Amino acid sequence: MNTFGQLLRVTTFGESHGPAIGCVVDGCPPGIPLAPEDFARDLERRATGRTRHTSARREEDAIEILSGVYEGLTTGTPIALLVRNTDARSRDYAAIAGQFRPGHADYAYWQKYGIRDPRGGGRSSARETTMRVAAGVIAKKWLADRHGVRVRGHLAQIGDIMPRSHDWDAVEGNPFFWPDAAQVPELEAYMDALRKSGDSVGARVAVVADGVPPGWGEPVYGKLDAGIAAAMMSINAVKGVEIGDGFASVAQRGSAHRDPMTPAGFLSNHAGGVLGGISSGQQVVCSVAFKPTSSLRLPVAGLDVDGQVVDIVTTGRHDPCVGIRATPICEAMLALELMDQALRHRAQCGDVGEVAPRIPASAGGRDDG
Amino acid sequence: MNTFGQLLRVTTFGESHGPAIGCVVDGCPPGIPLAPEDFARDLERRATGRTRHTSARREEDAIEILSGVYEGLTTGTPIALLVRNTDARSRDYAAIAGQFRPGHADYAYWQKYGIRDPRGGGRSSARETTMRVAAGVIAKKWLADRHGVRVRGHLAQIGDIMPRSHDWDAVEGNPFFWPDAAQVPELEAYMDALRKSGDSVGARVAVVADGVPPGWGEPVYGKLDAGIAAAMMSINAVKGVEIGDGFASVAQRGSAHRDPMTPAGFLSNHAGGVLGGISSGQQVVCSVAFKPTSSLRLPVAGLDVDGQVVDIVTTGRHDPCVGIRATPICEAMLALELMDQALRHRAQCGDVGEVAPRIPASAGGRDDG
Amino acid sequence: MNTFGQLLRVTTFGESHGPAIGCVVDGCPPGIPLAPEDFARDLERRATGRTRHTSARREEDAIEILSGVYEGLTTGTPIALLVRNTDARSRDYAAIAGQFRPGHADYAYWQKYGIRDPRGGGRSSARETTMRVAAGVIAKKWLADRHGVRVRGHLAQIGDIMPRSHDWDAVEGNPFFWPDAAQVPELEAYMDALRKSGDSVGARVAVVADGVPPGWGEPVYGKLDAGIAAAMMSINAVKGVEIGDGFASVAQRGSAHRDPMTPAGFLSNHAGGVLGGISSGQQVVCSVAFKPTSSLRLPVAGLDVDGQVVDIVTTGRHDPCVGIRATPICEAMLALELMDQALRHRAQCGDVGEVAPRIPASAGGRDDG
Amino acid sequence: MNTFGQLLRVTTFGESHGPAIGCVVDGCPPGIPLAPEDFARDLERRATGRTRHTSARREEDAIEILSGVYEGLTTGTPIALLVRNTDARSRDYAAIAGQFRPGHADYAYWQKYGIRDPRGGGRSSARETTMRVAAGVIAKKWLADRHGVRVRGHLAQIGDIMPRSHDWDAVEGNPFFWPDAAQVPELEAYMDALRKSGDSVGARVAVVADGVPPGWGEPVYGKLDAGIAAAMMSINAVKGVEIGDGFASVAQRGSAHRDPMTPAGFLSNHAGGVLGGISSGQQVVCSVAFKPTSSLRLPVAGLDVDGQVVDIVTTGRHDPCVGIRATPICEAMLALELMDQALRHRAQCGDVGEVAPRIPASAGGRDDG
Repeated sequence: MNTFGQLLRVTTFGESHGPAIGCVVDGCPPGIPLAPEDFARDLERRATGRTRHTSARREEDAIEILSGVYEGLTTGTPIALLVRNTDARSRDYAAIAGQFRPGHADYAYWQKYGIRDPRGGGRSSARETTMRVAAGVIAKKWLADRHGVRVRGHLAQIGDIMPRSHDWDAVEGNPFFWPDAAQVPELEAYMDALRKSGDSVGARVAVVADGVPPGWGEPVYGKLDAGIAAAMMSINAVKGVEIGDGFASVAQRGSAHRDPMTPAGFLSNHAGGVLGGISSGQQVVCSVAFKPTSSLRLPVAGLDVDGQVVDIVTTGRHDPCVGIRATPICEAMLALELMDQALRHRAQCGDVGEVAPRIPASAGGRDDG
Repeated sequence: MNTFGQLLRVTTFGESHGPAIGCVVDGCPPGIPLAPEDFARDLERRATGRTRHTSARREEDAIEILSGVYEGLTTGTPIALLVRNTDARSRDYAAIAGQFRPGHADYAYWQKYGIRDPRGGGRSSARETTMRVAAGVIAKKWLADRHGVRVRGHLAQIGDIMPRSHDWDAVEGNPFFWPDAAQVPELEAYMDALRKSGDSVGARVAVVADGVPPGWGEPVYGKLDAGIAAAMMSINAVKGVEIGDGFASVAQRGSAHRDPMTPAGFLSNHAGGVLGGISSGQQVVCSVAFKPTSSLRLPVAGLDVDGQVVDIVTTGRHDPCVGIRATPICEAMLALELMDQALRHRAQCGDVGEVAPRIPASAGGRDDG
Repeated sequence: MNTFGQLLRVTTFGESHGPAIGCVVDGCPPGIPLAPEDFARDLERRATGRTRHTSARREEDAIEILSGVYEGLTTGTPIALLVRNTDARSRDYAAIAGQFRPGHADYAYWQKYGIRDPRGGGRSSARETTMRVAAGVIAKKWLADRHGVRVRGHLAQIGDIMPRSHDWDAVEGNPFFWPDAAQVPELEAYMDALRKSGDSVGARVAVVADGVPPGWGEPVYGKLDAGIAAAMMSINAVKGVEIGDGFASVAQRGSAHRDPMTPAGFLSNHAGGVLGGISSGQQVVCSVAFKPTSSLRLPVAGLDVDGQVVDIVTTGRHDPCVGIRATPICEAMLALELMDQALRHRAQCGDVGEVAPRIPASAGGRDDG
Repeated sequence: MNTFGQLLRVTTFGESHGPAIGCVVDGCPPGIPLAPEDFARDLERRATGRTRHTSARREEDAIEILSGVYEGLTTGTPIALLVRNTDARSRDYAAIAGQFRPGHADYAYWQKYGIRDPRGGGRSSARETTMRVAAGVIAKKWLADRHGVRVRGHLAQIGDIMPRSHDWDAVEGNPFFWPDAAQVPELEAYMDALRKSGDSVGARVAVVADGVPPGWGEPVYGKLDAGIAAAMMSINAVKGVEIGDGFASVAQRGSAHRDPMTPAGFLSNHAGGVLGGISSGQQVVCSVAFKPTSSLRLPVAGLDVDGQVVDIVTTGRHDPCVGIRATPICEAMLALELMDQALRHRAQCGDVGEVAPRIPASAGGRDDG
């Protein structure tokens, strides 16, 4: 099941240290301008090797479009994208080919398939997310051009550190996708110390979509928020997903949680833009928890394929905080889910215009998760 | 998209105040003993009208098996289950047929379809979850009989109240599915006061599965935890889902989060029983956040179909805490997802026996979420 | 896999002699007028017991709409339809519960499931097609109202007898859906003799759709003709499907087969309205072969569940030519496939208007398969 | 919808004259030996340019395995296969970029998408079938190794010529997949004359599977024969599909059509190995009609994108009988459908052993379509 989506179907393939990774995007509407350059920015945002705070592996991630585009426009046929792997250093993994690393998929894959490709984590490597980001570029483009929808995200927590202020303009100006520029030196020191210690830490990513019209999402099992939850939880290392107020709702009163409606717009957005599984026209707000990576040079008790205890020490190139690079991945998954829902909505209900009464997303105040 | 599951496909139908609700369970293995009585216990656990802490609506929820069972055994053909609605009081809703209630699906359905059945919330009513629980009974049965898997849940938080101790035996002995019997009087007083105030509150449900063998779950987009996340988020009023340590992982170090492995078992279960999207053989642990219901007799600003502001007051029969009855629903969804994954695993990898080395779920200590 | 369709999903359930049969139609657009009476005509056309040329079983086939319709309009939520079985005479089947009838699904079901419901053929009975016809009514309605598409069929061969002329007006005026009224006495005599002989015979149904706009159908595996082929072959007793000239194409030259195009329309329709898996705007033409039913009072060598040879004699009520009642079933399946493809097309390409140049279906001449 | 299969999912991509064609095979069981050489034989059988009787285009069709195989074994993760296009001569198509060729997908694609890649037919080219054959190699291998199933085919008609005898050993010894070696000179003369005339002709392919165990196939809409019908009809140029006696059943009596059963086996195989949509254990027999190709140097009336009539003359390299090369394609599609059904059966019913009584495929006589 390496396919995401019902109508916009993204099928990815490839192992971390195999010859290539790629994807096939099927069901894409025709007539969308698309060129290899379009992928560069988001792939660069996701890539390793750009700062000292991520893994040192450096891939060019040059996208080759193999099909589905003619004279610069999508044709409606499947779009295949390919990236060759060039900086795979499989020798790093020779030592652990016969070992199951705690916190990794090694043991689970072994039990499932009776065989696994140990080089760089094989299929379970975060390298797969390259193609999510690539496919997400197409979805972002279509959402923006056709519906004026904008999808963006930022890091909302590293370890115990949370942003002290929120400025979208700051997010792309630092390697942490951090919305408070003043905190960047603090984060750099934190990460440097962490890296020296040989340990890793978790993170939380916030991702939002503005401009989503009301009506996207399918009751009952195809709810927009259910789709977002699956999309996010399918990303490596994710352990939790929230829509709107999420777990904070547990301690809330109904009189506080429900968002009053006026002709000028909703007065709050505790719901996170989804009611009954269908978009309400407000900002769609999602929060995602990433666990700390388990690939550490600090030893831990693991097993080998003979069932013997071994001290596992991971010496490959790894991220001390996988959540840092996860912002564009979460954006991509949100964009893919939204576009898929938009197509599903259009199938059943048509390209309807405005259904009266339609109210603005928000009657005022900050509205960005 | 009213179907859940890839191979065990549950399609539900029915509105809150329509003539009936029902479901079709397709893909079920043949030869499973099944009788109408099998559904009684879990439907009773989910039902309203049994205590003063839930909605006063009282439905018999008598399941009629319409197909797929012959001489007491499933035949492999679709199992259709039907429950007639008998205690629907649609007059309660006449007043709000032309209004959009804040926090409800009213406005979103209207924008999506241009039409909605306002009686009792129509399709968006929690009444739909009756059939989830019914279908879940079949899944629980198969999981238990064939794989020794046990799925169970409990309430883990109401408002700010959390259990002070954990005893599975206490859970079924009180109307709150609460694992600490000593706290029940406190909860009753809390709920009585809440009901009197006309307000509602959120809740958190913990649901776990013991005995899940390693190997269930499909990389990359069909991950077991991604499926669980979608399953839970598709339940009405859910705003967040966690696997294992969930959002607590954000502030953890990798050296603490990863679960060491020994031949005697894992030494901890921060992962919640899922690694790389595949079950690890440990207890599968999931936590679900329910928002407070928005149906209150306390007025709130809403809109009518003419776009005018109206004071919304909901006078129907409602739950002051929908999370209370949600435990069997969460169990059902976990069971359905697990059974679906089990069938998908069997399709690709066969009914394989033990793959060496296979280690116990846990090397010791409490292991129940 | 009791679901047909990708976006308009029809899930049927029920056994021939169980308490009821039914279906759930999911993904249907909102706002379609729908009432129980709408189903009467096509169900009557398909029903047994109306003439001496079909099985004597007489079911009222009164449709109950359980969900998805509010104040006479579809709401976009699943439409559940139910018909109670009332004239099941299972005693007819007691004798054969332990026998595998040649030409029936008995042995195959037994080998697949290790269990089967022998009463009236259980799930493999043609009674299931009642719900195909019911669902097809919705599709026909939508196709007609929204796109001006008309789906209709007729019998094109019984045994060796073929129509000598073609008049659509004649088709509904005789119990054989036969397009040449003058031949009806001949057919009646033929069927009477056949019935007396205790034997059965095959038939061929032609089904066409007029008004299908160009552009429906998805390359490569979701081709319109591939979908039609699966739809027809999924009907009980079907052994062959043709589009356009079908098997006659084998002996044709390319210069004769290809249909010339002019601004006034295509000059012929050998293709049957489908090019490259996509509708061309011409009449969609399909031909379907039905085998003779195997339920005969003439004995045949069969096996019992102990593997012993037994003489099988079938004494239940059966059709001497199942193809006679198959016309509305084929119509229903074509309508369901067309509507599903229309929704899929709308999802990917939108509710586009006319793409120039668009030419008429036909430049002249008869065009009705 | 460029994906075939429910559990063994084959997604193909690529245009005739684009940089490459490829496919992703997802859901494949782990542990199957697989190497690039495995694809050579069937790709060579399908390829053009090997004899004067097919198109002169000559592609090496060298398969690159991009993923899913580790140390020579499939790992259970998606298998991506890639073939670069090297002999594309797009200049042949410059003249027709603005024209709609009768009998081709040109006009239908244009109406669907509003854009099309005219080079070599783009996505609608038979070049796509290369990847069907490649994926089919994996299915054939698994079916043979695990279940002893053998899939093979032969040409059964060209124009009016039919085999006068049947010898499987002859089939691979001539460029026509013809089962009667003595007729080969006649066929060569026929094809030479046809090619000189500038015209083309249709063909019929017979494809069979031996060794299919009883029980594969899913009632009601997932019937084995329904799947086969869709699989075959999805191949370019196919206009008809038959199972077993197919259209000949129309004129048969039930007493003749039904296949008697004895402990020694079925006494005939009119059903073609499928009863009630489920395999019976007999040889699965399928017959497929291919239309004559429409790409001729003989002129025909067509339209250009301005709606004007133009004389269409096709000067590219084309097959005078596309059916000749279709035998391996039909084999591949039958193998893919069978493997998919085998996995689906295993999911629901497990890897069951023999269900008594199980009888041989045939009690005697020739049994090979």
